[in-house]
Amino acid sequence: MAKITPRTLSGFMELLPADQMKFERMLQVLRESYAAYGFTPLDTPVIESAEVLLAKGGGETEKQIYRFQKGDSDLALRFDLTVPLAKYVAANYANLSFPFRRYQIGKVYRGERAQRGRFREFYQADIDVIGDGKLDIMNEAEIPAIIYHSFTKLGLKNFKIRVNNRKLLNGFYAMNGMSEKAGEIMRTVDKLDKIGTQKVKQLLIDEVKMLPDKSENVLDFMAIQGSNDYVLSRLEAYRAMGEELFNRGLDELREVTRYLAAFGVPEENFAIDLTIARGLDYYTGTVYETTMTEHPEIGSICSGGRYDNLAEYYIDRQLPGVGISIGVTRLFYVLNEQGLLSDEPISAPCDALVIPMTEDMGAAVAAATALRRQGVRAMIYSEQKKFKAKMSYADKLQIPFVLLIGEDELAQGKVSLKDMTSGGQLVLSPEEAAAHVRAAVAEKNAAPVIGE
Amino acid sequence: MAKITPRTLSGFMELLPADQMKFERMLQVLRESYAAYGFTPLDTPVIESAEVLLAKGGGETEKQIYRFQKGDSDLALRFDLTVPLAKYVAANYANLSFPFRRYQIGKVYRGERAQRGRFREFYQADIDVIGDGKLDIMNEAEIPAIIYHSFTKLGLKNFKIRVNNRKLLNGFYAMNGMSEKAGEIMRTVDKLDKIGTQKVKQLLIDEVKMLPDKSENVLDFMAIQGSNDYVLSRLEAYRAMGEELFNRGLDELREVTRYLAAFGVPEENFAIDLTIARGLDYYTGTVYETTMTEHPEIGSICSGGRYDNLAEYYIDRQLPGVGISIGVTRLFYVLNEQGLLSDEPISAPCDALVIPMTEDMGAAVAAATALRRQGVRAMIYSEQKKFKAKMSYADKLQIPFVLLIGEDELAQGKVSLKDMTSGGQLVLSPEEAAAHVRAAVAEKNAAPVIGE
Repeated sequence: MAKITPRTLSGFMELLPADQMKFERMLQVLRESYAAYGFTPLDTPVIESAEVLLAKGGGETEKQIYRFQKGDSDLALRFDLTVPLAKYVAANYANLSFPFRRYQIGKVYRGERAQRGRFREFYQADIDVIGDGKLDIMNEAEIPAIIYHSFTKLGLKNFKIRVNNRKLLNGFYAMNGMSEKAGEIMRTVDKLDKIGTQKVKQLLIDEVKMLPDKSENVLDFMAIQGSNDYVLSRLEAYRAMGEELFNRGLDELREVTRYLAAFGVPEENFAIDLTIARGLDYYTGTVYETTMTEHPEIGSICSGGRYDNLAEYYIDRQLPGVGISIGVTRLFYVLNEQGLLSDEPISAPCDALVIPMTEDMGAAVAAATALRRQGVRAMIYSEQKKFKAKMSYADKLQIPFVLLIGEDELAQGKVSLKDMTSGGQLVLSPEEAAAHVRAAVAEKNAAPVIGE
Repeated sequence: MAKITPRTLSGFMELLPADQMKFERMLQVLRESYAAYGFTPLDTPVIESAEVLLAKGGGETEKQIYRFQKGDSDLALRFDLTVPLAKYVAANYANLSFPFRRYQIGKVYRGERAQRGRFREFYQADIDVIGDGKLDIMNEAEIPAIIYHSFTKLGLKNFKIRVNNRKLLNGFYAMNGMSEKAGEIMRTVDKLDKIGTQKVKQLLIDEVKMLPDKSENVLDFMAIQGSNDYVLSRLEAYRAMGEELFNRGLDELREVTRYLAAFGVPEENFAIDLTIARGLDYYTGTVYETTMTEHPEIGSICSGGRYDNLAEYYIDRQLPGVGISIGVTRLFYVLNEQGLLSDEPISAPCDALVIPMTEDMGAAVAAATALRRQGVRAMIYSEQKKFKAKMSYADKLQIPFVLLIGEDELAQGKVSLKDMTSGGQLVLSPEEAAAHVRAAVAEKNAAPVIGE
């Protein structure tokens, strides 16, 4: 029979078992970590009506959207988890209590040009807090604090959450009479990291058509760097200009900084960075980006911010919110590429392989049951193979323990427990073996996923 | 601004938070339960090349498939998790160890006619064991045993796993000279439950064009019911016919029955049922269906079987396997409809709500941190609202505990812990409060998801 090549589409991540296990661990840490802060899990369809999904107009993303007809329905695949959240909150407004805190971890779709490390199907792991009419500034500090704790739990160490405030930025542009050009300026300033101050200045003058001294003002402002206290004190100097929006932004930034410390986020993982703007128009207060300090080339691994109107396209209620999103697929890909994923937590399909060496499998079944009763993941090797093949199966899959049950063990009601790492072997009752394996794997599995 | 109605497509399940929490618990129980038996988690793309997905030819399902163009690619959404598994195993054959045991829990898509309780996007939770060339019969008993343990863990009690064997069936048709009509007969016999023996007999004679005595033979065979021992002994009577396929099927059925008992599956949850055939052509040995004994109208909630050739469209290797699939979305929908989901496990977004009653939130942050440190899911209520509104938030969300921190508590370094169920209140240190809540919620959360 002619075969079809079993290929997976490019831009779609599909992992081998050991890597998949690591990926699942990451998701589970995020689920538990988000849940610890009182976020409720949400799940929305991957397919939505195109009209609903594109209510806002797609802009840049519109070209990337997977959109198709089925019957006479115009459908599209979600390209983020924020639009579905807006739809959900608008549709279920009367049944929700606000602030509404939800997390969602799911796949989203963007038909980007295929490129190494760029995915067309990828997981986002989002948290958002939505208020009804109002939402306290404290949430703008709690969100990055949750990210700090989540990343720390994953084992990530060298990262920095960069925080800025859109009111502060917009206020700054207003006080310089540059409000209409603010968008263009921000897009240009965004290139600072890549092309440097001189070239950005030239672009501001040549393309944004700014006067040299005005562009100087912008670059001076963006150059304010240092400890959070220092940056805040330098910003205070602008307060006297009396630009109300700027001053409110500065107050918010100060408050967020203060609360972040209260939430236990150390200064080395958190910095005010005035160059952060976030492209999206709808951010109106605090904005976040997160970079791996040893790998700045990767760009932001987690971004978000405060918005004033989540669902204005669907509902006549003002629903301010703050949210952040981790691009989990890309983060995993990068960590794996860099060799930063730990091999410590067990990525074998089980903790112990039970190998029966007699015809009857009753004792093997009983031993596996004893293992599972103590929370040990157990598999019975039931194929009729030579002993060597059975051991090599355990070996290839890096299963940490093997339980051998031959005639001798059967006669004694025992098992031989072999530690595949040390090679050591013990004769134990099935329950003792289970307790031994349980303790040994608990230790390994307590290790964080990322071994940075 | 004109609003777009925030609607969700019909046939797509989208749950309110408390129900979603119950659904997530079901998924988590299945994940843990499958992992306990040494199945490795797998994740494959939702979108595949249409050529790959439809290699086998879609048949009945082809019309239901979501298929579309993107650029010049002909794409389709997966309609089950078996075809992606076949592709995966064929593509990664050299990197896998066999038997390959994987579980996959994910969404699949079928554009069925919208109907109450029928979903176009739904979760399947599959386990499969794939052998390379061979696969021991023991796996055919272990698979339903895992389902028994998973359902039991979920709290389901009144269910029966019905087991049959395709070799036995095909052998029976062969010994009666009805092999060419076997498919048609099986489809007709499948209606026994719905239309009864007499009407099925009439159909066999009128439509399948069987002689009356032959149709009698079929119905006599299908009528064999009773304890597994009884059914097996009645089947033994056919052994003398010397039909090799039948006899092998009978041996397998006997073996599966024996091992199921060894795996601790009680007879009331497991029955040989000769009317089970499973429509799909590729099953070649044991087949399963699972019904809720109090709700037979629901049909099978979990089905599968043994097949001889998983990936013949992709690879020139014989890869026999056995698998089973739970239609989780439909199961959840039915359980919810029937009021069979338990309210015991907490479905609030957190276990404890920390309510600060002073301006400064430092103590609230510290208390929430103490709670989380002990594994308690904690949320801080940081909105500036009246006390009553804060309490009503906890009430509406059915959060079991509230920690109040006012001037008095602040002065003592304590919190007031209020049990929202009993109304009782205690003044405790944050750590004591955390321990108290932890113990109370552990008890509730140990309750199974299904309260049948």
